[in-house]
Amino acid sequence: MSQLLPSALVTAIDELGHLPGVGVRTAERYAYFLLRADSRISEKLAKSISELQNKVKSCPITFALIDANEEVSELYSDQTRDKKIVAVVEEPLDIIALERTGQFNGTYHVLGGAISPIDGIGPEQLHIPELIDRLTKDNVQEVIIATNASVEGESTALFLQRHIVDAGINIKLTRLARGIPVGVDLEYAGQITLAHALEGRRAF
Amino acid sequence: MSQLLPSALVTAIDELGHLPGVGVRTAERYAYFLLRADSRISEKLAKSISELQNKVKSCPITFALIDANEEVSELYSDQTRDKKIVAVVEEPLDIIALERTGQFNGTYHVLGGAISPIDGIGPEQLHIPELIDRLTKDNVQEVIIATNASVEGESTALFLQRHIVDAGINIKLTRLARGIPVGVDLEYAGQITLAHALEGRRAF
Repeated sequence: MSQLLPSALVTAIDELGHLPGVGVRTAERYAYFLLRADSRISEKLAKSISELQNKVKSCPITFALIDANEEVSELYSDQTRDKKIVAVVEEPLDIIALERTGQFNGTYHVLGGAISPIDGIGPEQLHIPELIDRLTKDNVQEVIIATNASVEGESTALFLQRHIVDAGINIKLTRLARGIPVGVDLEYAGQITLAHALEGRRAF
Repeated sequence: MSQLLPSALVTAIDELGHLPGVGVRTAERYAYFLLRADSRISEKLAKSISELQNKVKSCPITFALIDANEEVSELYSDQTRDKKIVAVVEEPLDIIALERTGQFNGTYHVLGGAISPIDGIGPEQLHIPELIDRLTKDNVQEVIIATNASVEGESTALFLQRHIVDAGINIKLTRLARGIPVGVDLEYAGQITLAHALEGRRAF
């Protein structure tokens, strides 16, 4: 194809193809858009990508993403946040999802993934020791295990629960409710979701 | 959200959101991927986007995309290509689609879009005068109008056909066959496609 397309365009298509879920056709669309867009749009995009890794770091306590010039996450340092309740999530973006609910006033702890033997991710690659440290240091009363509702998320939740109990830490351990998502008809809810919804049924 | 996410990440999400068809969730996924990826991947992507517009230009004859240091498209200058047959397409990437067939040995002419009153694109914004010039200059025998099978593509094809006839140019004018795509069952082919397929039926 080098004869058909200018090499700079081929390079851009190749590089855009590294983005998750982006195939050749989508990468071609993106590159062609950037080629014709106002040069300020492509310059600003290039700059933002180039600066991203240098301007963002992980909070050393919660492992949330923070500005490179910050000490710790504001979601931790903020005096109005309750350090005695910790929501444990897999990835930094999960924090955004929980914050959007406006229902949580505790702090967060990002594991940095979930246990997944297929992907070669074991407990030792997750920020579990740092979580255990926080539990005593901050005198934590409740840990909400908010991992994903996937096989890996469930395994990680079970591992964490056993790990905390085995460490002799006496603490309230909870997890997000499983059930029927709002707006979904019973007939479309999955079998396992329905089983969870039945099991977790609540009195009126 | 500025409190929740580092500003460099918010910026990258905003900028990635300019790509066509990319919403906030997808932009978040891309940004998060770039944040965690090997720094060489994000640097190379940023560089390729930044260089794109300076290293690519339009061929002054065919309006295909070429390297900034090339004179004209190789698909035109190549002596083995038949300059007497010109396929007229809307966009540069359409050339790739036709070249992939391996069935075409003529040259191309990119209009730079299709007539679309809704989008404010009239014939005067397309490379039509340059096409008319080529017809006499290269002593063209056949023009294959290969615009898209959309309303805009059809309008553009009709406009071109009339425009060439009105210019008093006596030339063979053809267009791509409409019909049932390979591998598609009759029952799934659209009504208009089927009508075209009937109209254009061929003897065994």
